[in-house]
Amino acid sequence: MANTIQVKFKDGSIRLFSAGVTCKDLAFTISKSLGKKAVAVKVNGQSFDLSYVLESDAEVEILTLEDSMGIEVMRLTTAHVMAQAIKRLYPEVKLAIGPVIPGGFYYDFADRTFNLEDLSKIEAEMKRIIQENLPIERRVVSREEALAYFQEKDERFKVEMIQDTPIGEEITLYQQGEYTDLCRGPHLPSTGLVKAFKLMSIAGSYWRGDANREMLTRIYGVAFRTHQELNNHLREIEEAKQRDHRKVGKEQEIFMLCKEVGQGLPIWLPKGAKIRRLIESYMIDLEEKMGYEHVYSPHLANINLYKIADYLQQYSDELYPSLKLDKQEELILRPINCPHHMMVFKSKVRSYRDLPVRIAELGMMHRNEIPETLTGLERVRVMTMNDAHIFCRQDQIKEEFKQVVRLIKQVYDDFGIINYFYRLSYPNLHGQDDTKWELSQQQLKETLDELGLDYVEEINDAAPYGGPKLDVQVKTASGKTETLSTIQLDFQLPEHFELNYINETSQKECPMVIHHSILGTLERFIAFLIEQYQGAFPIWLAPIQVRVVTVGQDYEDYAQEVAKKLQHSGIRVELDANAETLNYKIRRAQIDRIPYTLVIGERELGMQVVRPRHYGRGDLGVMSLDIFLARVQEEVYHKELLI
Amino acid sequence: MANTIQVKFKDGSIRLFSAGVTCKDLAFTISKSLGKKAVAVKVNGQSFDLSYVLESDAEVEILTLEDSMGIEVMRLTTAHVMAQAIKRLYPEVKLAIGPVIPGGFYYDFADRTFNLEDLSKIEAEMKRIIQENLPIERRVVSREEALAYFQEKDERFKVEMIQDTPIGEEITLYQQGEYTDLCRGPHLPSTGLVKAFKLMSIAGSYWRGDANREMLTRIYGVAFRTHQELNNHLREIEEAKQRDHRKVGKEQEIFMLCKEVGQGLPIWLPKGAKIRRLIESYMIDLEEKMGYEHVYSPHLANINLYKIADYLQQYSDELYPSLKLDKQEELILRPINCPHHMMVFKSKVRSYRDLPVRIAELGMMHRNEIPETLTGLERVRVMTMNDAHIFCRQDQIKEEFKQVVRLIKQVYDDFGIINYFYRLSYPNLHGQDDTKWELSQQQLKETLDELGLDYVEEINDAAPYGGPKLDVQVKTASGKTETLSTIQLDFQLPEHFELNYINETSQKECPMVIHHSILGTLERFIAFLIEQYQGAFPIWLAPIQVRVVTVGQDYEDYAQEVAKKLQHSGIRVELDANAETLNYKIRRAQIDRIPYTLVIGERELGMQVVRPRHYGRGDLGVMSLDIFLARVQEEVYHKELLI
Repeated sequence: MANTIQVKFKDGSIRLFSAGVTCKDLAFTISKSLGKKAVAVKVNGQSFDLSYVLESDAEVEILTLEDSMGIEVMRLTTAHVMAQAIKRLYPEVKLAIGPVIPGGFYYDFADRTFNLEDLSKIEAEMKRIIQENLPIERRVVSREEALAYFQEKDERFKVEMIQDTPIGEEITLYQQGEYTDLCRGPHLPSTGLVKAFKLMSIAGSYWRGDANREMLTRIYGVAFRTHQELNNHLREIEEAKQRDHRKVGKEQEIFMLCKEVGQGLPIWLPKGAKIRRLIESYMIDLEEKMGYEHVYSPHLANINLYKIADYLQQYSDELYPSLKLDKQEELILRPINCPHHMMVFKSKVRSYRDLPVRIAELGMMHRNEIPETLTGLERVRVMTMNDAHIFCRQDQIKEEFKQVVRLIKQVYDDFGIINYFYRLSYPNLHGQDDTKWELSQQQLKETLDELGLDYVEEINDAAPYGGPKLDVQVKTASGKTETLSTIQLDFQLPEHFELNYINETSQKECPMVIHHSILGTLERFIAFLIEQYQGAFPIWLAPIQVRVVTVGQDYEDYAQEVAKKLQHSGIRVELDANAETLNYKIRRAQIDRIPYTLVIGERELGMQVVRPRHYGRGDLGVMSLDIFLARVQEEVYHKELLI
Repeated sequence: MANTIQVKFKDGSIRLFSAGVTCKDLAFTISKSLGKKAVAVKVNGQSFDLSYVLESDAEVEILTLEDSMGIEVMRLTTAHVMAQAIKRLYPEVKLAIGPVIPGGFYYDFADRTFNLEDLSKIEAEMKRIIQENLPIERRVVSREEALAYFQEKDERFKVEMIQDTPIGEEITLYQQGEYTDLCRGPHLPSTGLVKAFKLMSIAGSYWRGDANREMLTRIYGVAFRTHQELNNHLREIEEAKQRDHRKVGKEQEIFMLCKEVGQGLPIWLPKGAKIRRLIESYMIDLEEKMGYEHVYSPHLANINLYKIADYLQQYSDELYPSLKLDKQEELILRPINCPHHMMVFKSKVRSYRDLPVRIAELGMMHRNEIPETLTGLERVRVMTMNDAHIFCRQDQIKEEFKQVVRLIKQVYDDFGIINYFYRLSYPNLHGQDDTKWELSQQQLKETLDELGLDYVEEINDAAPYGGPKLDVQVKTASGKTETLSTIQLDFQLPEHFELNYINETSQKECPMVIHHSILGTLERFIAFLIEQYQGAFPIWLAPIQVRVVTVGQDYEDYAQEVAKKLQHSGIRVELDANAETLNYKIRRAQIDRIPYTLVIGERELGMQVVRPRHYGRGDLGVMSLDIFLARVQEEVYHKELLI
C-alpha cells in the first residue's frame, strides 16, 4: 500500500497525497481548470514534466503559461515541434541543438540550408503537429540504448553529445509521435498546448560555437501565450528595427560600412563625424574642467608593455595577430590603454601633493571580433574608448569616486539618458583572505551610501584586475540592458608597473588607480544615441541645426542673408533654394531630422522675419531672426531634446 | 718633342702649354700664389687631382678652398687622414668606406668600437699627420694588384669592393705615407693642406647599409677652410641642439618616448595633447569653413582595398606585416587614406551639381620605419595626417587649386611661417605622349601664374600616382629644407576606383581628384613648430596662457579671484601660490614658456589691478584685469607670436 506524503504549495497550504501520484493528477485534484492549464511543475525548486511522480514530501508549484517558467517550457516544446516539422518535410536534415532563448528558441540544423520561403512551409507543418496534439513522453534510457537509437538514425550530433555526457549522468529522450529527441526537458504534456508562435529568421552558426567545426543553419522562432502577446512582440521588433542604428545610420548618412574597406570597420560620414566630434569636444571639455589631463597615446605598442601587466592572456581572445618586425621587435594593436597611462604617470617624479593625477584619453582600441558578431557601430573591430585613470592616495578614493559618479550623472543628464541603474560588483576572491580588497569594497559601499545611490550587488567572476566595480546599466531602445559606464578600483596594476609617489614622510608609496569610462566606446555610445533619439539628435548635437528653405526658387537673396547671419552666430545652417515645392522641402527636412526649418516666402521677406518649423513641435509662427537665434542658442545651451 | 695644347680658363682666356704638363705646374705658371693655394682641378667639367696630366686641348679650372668643390676634396682627404690616424693607433681596425657628406665626412670601421675619449686621441694623431705634410699619390692599378694588396693587409671590405667593381673600370689607390686606401679621389696634393677640422660623433651603421650585414662603427667629422668657419658651424649646431624638438619637447613635457611603449611611438603628454588639439580644431574649423566635409575612417583596412589602387607595391617598404585572420581575411595597417575617401565619394550617387565634393580627415597612417631612422616626433611609426581629397570636374580644377593655395597661405600666416617657396614638379612621362597630363600641367602653370606665384620647377621620378604636384618647401630652424604642404592632381585613382558622377547630359563621367595636405602629419608639423618657436608657443596655442603668481604665499585669495575670472573668460590659466620666492617663480614661468605671468602682491591687491609680465617683452606695469583680458583676447584673435 502506498505511503501518504505531504505536499506544500506556493500559497503555504499543505495537502496529503499517496506516494506515486503524478503532478498532473495532483493539479487536477486541486481544480479541473488548473489541471487543464498546467504545463509543467516545479518540485523543491526544480522544474519537471507534469508527468513527474512524487514519492516523498515536497514543495510543489504547478506551472501554467501565466508563469515565465511555464512559457519557457512551451518554447522548448515549440523548438521540438519545429524540428519535427522539418524532419517530416526534409528527412535528410540532421539535428544539432535547440535551446530556449529570451522570447523564443532556435534550433541548429545540418545538411540543408533554408530560405525564407521554407519558413512558411515549416510553420504550416508545425500547426499540423499542434493540431494533432501528440502526447509528449519522457524516457530515461541507458547510454547504449541512446547511442544505438541515434546511430541508427544517423544523427551524428546527437551521438557526439551522448558520447560527451559524463558517466553516471541521466540520459533522457522525449518523444512526440514519430519524432524522438535527446533532451533534458521539461516539456509540455502534449503538442496541442503550444500557443502563438512564429519563425523569425535564419542565420549561420557553428557546431558548438567553434568556427573550426561544421557550419550549421540556425532557425530562430518566438512563442507566446496568446496571439495578442505575439503581435505586440512583433510590433516591438518592428519598432526596434525602425530605430535600429544600422537603418537610421544609413538613412541619415551617419556612417557607412563596405566590404572593400573591411568588415567591422565603419567610416564615419560627414554628419556622423560632426556628431562624434561634438561629443568628443563635449567630453574632453567636461573632463578637463573636472581636473583631468587628456593625452594621446599610440594604438600600437611593444608587446612587452602588455606582458608587464599580464594582460595578454586576459585579452587573448580579442587580440589581433602581433606584428613581428626585424630584430625581435614585436608590436601589438592594443586592446586597452591602461599600460600607456601607467607609463605617463611614471614619466616624472610625483609627490603626495600632486595627487590625484587624472589622465584621460579618447584612444583607439582593437578587438579581433569574428565577422558573425559584428553589428553596425555597436560591435566593431577598431573602437575609440573614452576612458581615464585616476592615480590617488588611499584617503582620496572616496572623494574621487564620488566625483566620477557626479560626472556620470551630469553626462547622462546632458544626453537625456534616464533609464539606468547602478550595479556594484565584487571580484570572486574564491575564499582568499584579502583585507585590502575587503577594505576597499567597504569603502566603496560607504561612498555609494553617502551619495544616497540605489544599487544592486553581485559577485563577478570575470572582472579584469579583480577590483570592485560600479557599472551603470542602461536600457537600450530595443529593450536590452547594457553596461554603459564603469568605474573600477585597482591596486594591482600600479604595483605591476612599480608606480610610486613620495609621501609625507618622503617614502615611496604605491598609488591607487581608479579606472573609469563614462561613454564607453564612441562607436557603441553613438549607436545607442541613434536608437534613443530615433536619429533626431538634439539641437546641440545635430550636424545641421537649421535649414533655410525658400518658397519656390524666389527669395533666395533674403534666405542667403538669413543663413549668413545664423552662420556668423555659430549656428550650423544650410540653404535649400531648389526648385521643389515647399511641401516637398519641408517633408525632406523632416526626413533629414533637421531641428529647425525656416520657411522664407513673400511675407517673411516683406516683414523681415522668419517662420521656424520645429522638428517635433511643428510650425511656430513668424518671429524676428534675433528672437529665433536667441531661442536656438538657449536650446543648445540647455541641451534640449528634440522629441 | 711635345705637342702644344690650348688650355681655356674659367675667365675665357686661352693659353698654350706643352702636352704632358701637370695641372699643378699649370697653376704655378699662372701665379705662384695660385700654385700654392691650388688643391685640385676641374678638366672639361670633371674634377681631378692636381697631378692630372694634360695631353690635349682642354677647359681647365684650378680649384682652391674658395670653391665648394675644393672644400669637398679637402673633406675627402680629411677622411683619409682620420683613417690613417686610426690605423696608426689601432692597427686591428678594418676599413670600410669614408665618403664626403654636407659639411664634412665619415668613415666606417670594423673590429673595434670607439668612445668619445678615443676621438681626442685620434684628433691629436690627425694633427700630427697634417704636420707631417705627407705627399698624396694616386696610382692606377690592375684588379689583381689591388686584390693582392688588400688581401695581404686583411682588409675584407676593400677586397669585396674590388671584387664588385665592374670589369674594365679603373681601380685607383691613394697613398699618403704608410697609408694606402682604395679610392676614386680626387685628393689634396698633401696632408698639410687640411685646415680646420673636428670629429663630431660616433654612430652604428651596417656594411652597405644592409641590416643583415656586419655592424660597423661610423665616425663623423667636419672640416672647414678656416677655424672661424668651423667655430661658426659648431655654434650653429649648438643652437640647433638647443631648439631641437626632442630636447624642448622633453623639457616642456610636450611628449614622451619610452622603450616599454615602443620605439617611434610617442605619447603626447597633457601639454602637447592640448597644443595638438588646438591645432586640430583650428584646422578642422578652417577646412569646414572652406567647404570641406570631415570624416573619420578606420586605420585598418582589408588588404584588397589597397590592391584596387596598386598601392601596395608603392608603399611596400613602409608597410607593416599584414594581419592574417580566419577565413582568408587579411587586414593591413593603412599607409595612406586615399582609398577610404574614394569609397566615401562612391557611397552615393553624385551629380555634376554636387561637385566639388571635398572630403577631409585627420587620419592615422602607419610606416614601418627602421629603428635607426626614428627621430622624436619628426619620424615616427604611427602618424596623424591632415589631408583631403577634392573630387571635381575638369572645369573646376583651376578654382579649386587656387582655393587650396589660399588655404595654405592663410595657415602659414596664422602660424607665422615665412621662410618658404613653391616647387612645381611633373611626373617623368619617359617620352610617353600623354595629352591629358600635359593639359593638366599647363592648367596648373596657368593657375600659378594667375595667382602671381613664384615657383621653381622640376621633373619628379618618384611622385606617387604620377600627377603634377605643387610642394611648399619650408626652411626648418636647423636650416634644412623640407616639404610641408603638397597639392597633387590625379585622374588615375578615380579611374581605378571606377568613380563617377552624372554630368549635364545624364552620362556617367569620372571626376578628377586633387589630393592635398596642408600640415602634413601633426607629429612632424608640431616638431617643426617646437623648433620654430623654440618651445614658446604663441598665446593662441600655449597650453597655459597665463600663470598667476603670488608674492610669497600671501594674497592667494585675490590671486584665486583673478585666476577664476580669467578662466571664466575662456583663458587657460594656472595659479602658483607656492612658498618659493617671487624671483624663482618668475624664472620658473619663463622656463615653462608661459606667455603671461601675473604677479599679485600688496600693491596689486590694494589697487585691485594686475601686473602682467610678457614672456618676450617683460614687465608691462600695472593695469586693470579687464584691460589685461582684452589684451590677451586680442592677441589670441590675431594669433600673435610670442617671440
